[in-house]
Amino acid sequence: MARARIVLLVAAVVWLLVSVPVSAQTVTKYVRFAEGSRVAYGVLEGDTIAELAGGLFDNPKPTGRRVKLADVKLLAPVAPSKVIAVGLNYQTHLGERSSAKYPGLFAKLPTTIIGPGDAIVFPPDATNVHYEGEMVVVIGRRASHVSEAEAPDYVFGVTCGNDVSERDWQKSDLQWFRAKATDTFGPLGPVIARGLNYNDLLLQTRLNGEVKQKQRTSDLIFSVPAVVSYISRYVTLLPGDIIYTGTPGATSAMKPGDVVEVELEGVGVLRNTVKR
Amino acid sequence: MARARIVLLVAAVVWLLVSVPVSAQTVTKYVRFAEGSRVAYGVLEGDTIAELAGGLFDNPKPTGRRVKLADVKLLAPVAPSKVIAVGLNYQTHLGERSSAKYPGLFAKLPTTIIGPGDAIVFPPDATNVHYEGEMVVVIGRRASHVSEAEAPDYVFGVTCGNDVSERDWQKSDLQWFRAKATDTFGPLGPVIARGLNYNDLLLQTRLNGEVKQKQRTSDLIFSVPAVVSYISRYVTLLPGDIIYTGTPGATSAMKPGDVVEVELEGVGVLRNTVKR
Repeated sequence: MARARIVLLVAAVVWLLVSVPVSAQTVTKYVRFAEGSRVAYGVLEGDTIAELAGGLFDNPKPTGRRVKLADVKLLAPVAPSKVIAVGLNYQTHLGERSSAKYPGLFAKLPTTIIGPGDAIVFPPDATNVHYEGEMVVVIGRRASHVSEAEAPDYVFGVTCGNDVSERDWQKSDLQWFRAKATDTFGPLGPVIARGLNYNDLLLQTRLNGEVKQKQRTSDLIFSVPAVVSYISRYVTLLPGDIIYTGTPGATSAMKPGDVVEVELEGVGVLRNTVKR
Repeated sequence: MARARIVLLVAAVVWLLVSVPVSAQTVTKYVRFAEGSRVAYGVLEGDTIAELAGGLFDNPKPTGRRVKLADVKLLAPVAPSKVIAVGLNYQTHLGERSSAKYPGLFAKLPTTIIGPGDAIVFPPDATNVHYEGEMVVVIGRRASHVSEAEAPDYVFGVTCGNDVSERDWQKSDLQWFRAKATDTFGPLGPVIARGLNYNDLLLQTRLNGEVKQKQRTSDLIFSVPAVVSYISRYVTLLPGDIIYTGTPGATSAMKPGDVVEVELEGVGVLRNTVKR
């Protein structure tokens, strides 16, 4: 019996030593980029992009062509048919309020989406526009009525997002439509990381270099699998659809000229400027 | 002077006599249909469809092919990238409440859209699902920051819609997402009528043959041009995007087995069944 236990212990140690580096090696970073008028997907490898043929969700094959990251413009890493968001999903953002029994959802729009480096543009009458740094889930397969246990199979990967929000409109309007769905209010990118443990990543937001939000995704009230499963009970998710998972802590107003950065551990930094 | 007045009067009468029949003649009814696995747009002429080549918003040309309406399945007449809706846009629906100073907007989703004859499917936990008969606007051209005067140029036509709503979720949830954006909660069709005066059409909803809602679109608090212009100040509208313009009067719960019809004068009848 003692020998059996030792064998098990050794096996466990070996498994731990081997599996951690292996899972770290299998993280892939997908980008979408423009080279003149040409748009393609690719895999980011250091400062080089290995181009892919076709779409991202049908096992795309490398074309063999490689381009320098510096020679192209990175776009939002996906063009979603739906942009869904979760409200009040970190206790630090909720403050004294108690959390709901199920995720609080709302819709942004595909026309909100901008890529890394693009400008968040305030409409003329906007006066109180806040950043909301978030982890964003990218759906990889059609998902309808999937359980929480099955949900990870439908997640393609994660990226950084900024759920830009006009706080005054959020209070005054019938619904959050204008506050959340105005053009450019959905910065996204720079890469979709596939193979990360998205249940425990450090998320940070910086405004003009100063850290404003800092929290681990392990603090999400409703986890990624819980959110995907819940949405799929009502709404069919399609490949490329995205879910903003919620923002932690406090937010504040941005002003024209500001630079806002959302950083997600293992993914990278989404940097955008602000203008009117 | 008297002769000039008579000439003007005669000219005005002639213009009225000529222009009314001309505008009535120029109403065109567009459909989208499936013939086996083939999907195409066409123009409905009596019981026949004249097929069109390509999309609906790039001056499509007739292919010369004609099919019998009875031999095809009509689909929702457009596949929108955005489904936007106006809340509380008839005083009869508002009741005692005073109307807002600007349109109250919310988002449905492309996955809500079903065509004529399709079933509205209740999710297992839905208990209080209401019809909302509405006129729906179909956008024909990219619209950003367009004035109310320019807005009609961006409207392709109108169709019937049912803004199906789960009233309990609408009250209990953080936002109206689940109440309004659940799969099949967006019946649409049967045709897009182009050339109608959509500012004054009779809108009726029938549940199992009984008239439940009846109002003219001239009673909209925010007119079609006002709504299109207002949305375009914040959100870029694209060809094929649709706007549910609001529901009049009172609504009530539907149950599995019900048949719900939305009829818009000059457009036709959108008929859907209900099941769990």
